[in-house]
Amino acid sequence: MARPSLYQQVASELRRAIYSGDYGPGAQLPTEEELRSRHGVSRNTVRLAVAELVNEGLVTRAPRRGTIVRERRALLMHPQRELEPQPTGVPREAFAYAVSQEGRQPSQLIEVLTVKPAEDIASRLELDDGKLAVVRRRLRFVDGQPYNTNDSYFPHDLVAESEIARPGDIGRGANRVLEELGHAQIRVVDDIWARMPNQAEVERLQLELGTPVVVYVRVGYDREDTPVRVAVSVLPADKHLIRYELGSR
Amino acid sequence: MARPSLYQQVASELRRAIYSGDYGPGAQLPTEEELRSRHGVSRNTVRLAVAELVNEGLVTRAPRRGTIVRERRALLMHPQRELEPQPTGVPREAFAYAVSQEGRQPSQLIEVLTVKPAEDIASRLELDDGKLAVVRRRLRFVDGQPYNTNDSYFPHDLVAESEIARPGDIGRGANRVLEELGHAQIRVVDDIWARMPNQAEVERLQLELGTPVVVYVRVGYDREDTPVRVAVSVLPADKHLIRYELGSR
Repeated sequence: MARPSLYQQVASELRRAIYSGDYGPGAQLPTEEELRSRHGVSRNTVRLAVAELVNEGLVTRAPRRGTIVRERRALLMHPQRELEPQPTGVPREAFAYAVSQEGRQPSQLIEVLTVKPAEDIASRLELDDGKLAVVRRRLRFVDGQPYNTNDSYFPHDLVAESEIARPGDIGRGANRVLEELGHAQIRVVDDIWARMPNQAEVERLQLELGTPVVVYVRVGYDREDTPVRVAVSVLPADKHLIRYELGSR
Repeated sequence: MARPSLYQQVASELRRAIYSGDYGPGAQLPTEEELRSRHGVSRNTVRLAVAELVNEGLVTRAPRRGTIVRERRALLMHPQRELEPQPTGVPREAFAYAVSQEGRQPSQLIEVLTVKPAEDIASRLELDDGKLAVVRRRLRFVDGQPYNTNDSYFPHDLVAESEIARPGDIGRGANRVLEELGHAQIRVVDDIWARMPNQAEVERLQLELGTPVVVYVRVGYDREDTPVRVAVSVLPADKHLIRYELGSR
């Protein structure tokens, strides 16, 4: 494998200084001129090194303030915890739980629609042609800032008469309503991938340039192994970290 | 929530046609002129719609061939399977297993180094200041094409005398060697996020423009709850899908 080039070495030293906290969140990196003389390299090499860190989401260029180390308060999500028994009254929906664990304030905008679902959703829900789904579409906020989206689809035939199909929040959570309907989810399949956001997502989630999104899709199955819920989350990559723990202590 | 704009409606119809297979992998989308007249919109609207699909990784622009639907053979990875008992002789390392399951040919370039690990690796391995790690750095291929990278770090003190510290492939896998050393991994913590690739990754993995990478880090703990392995995979987002299954049938 090739020796790292000069700009990669400079990027690497800056990266180390950021990770070690020498330059903490909000700190200003040295100017191009300072970096140039400190590392004894050309201005172009400095620019390439800094561009690399911008690209990795570690720093951002702010007008009149130079290059600033980004706040990297990624929200740690534990998708497994949603399956654990829920103490009454405590929200264990993965997002709200993760946010409140950090002492921050979750909130959401929600709309509830009956739709003919897109092909990939219909296929995951194993819906026959022409069958409808109820979707609960959420835009979720942390401390008032848009943070991610979560669209949960349910077979219309299953939930049409329940709270799930009615507008507004469900205090005890839609999963609890599914339980009450006799369709508790006893198994889930989580698919995770990433892509660049589309323009609607850039606007809705107020994404910075060059921020990819992680797409996280959970399909929940009931005791009959029938899919009863498909939840699609779109998570801006600079703000989310997904964690699974496997095996036992 | 806002009504989708005109170009989003066009993008949405094209997206549906791609997902439904009307335009399969390798198919050519209609020309801008055809799309313009078919949807009764301006050329600019068509361009915005197609740009959106390029951005999502669904299509790519090929010189002289127009806009082509991409091959979307994402490799399905099951990180859980690495923890299952291994039938002798069968490779169950997640990547090699996933590739051979699909009838494709895995291969790799490997280099083995003793290094002073970066801050984040040292911290995950709980190494004291100045302690060294052995890293097995792999560039992995599918059918001869570079596909992803996997760097596995081990505490030098633990593995220095073992095969793990020696160059070359380990037929039965490094995890088996850890077992033989009395440090079987009985618990793992998987962290998953995404970011844009750096320039070295773009070159090494031959990434197309605008392709993010998923970073997947597994820390393995032995019976004493000591971290014995940190594996960092960099997975081009257009080629990988990570799947977890939780709960029981």
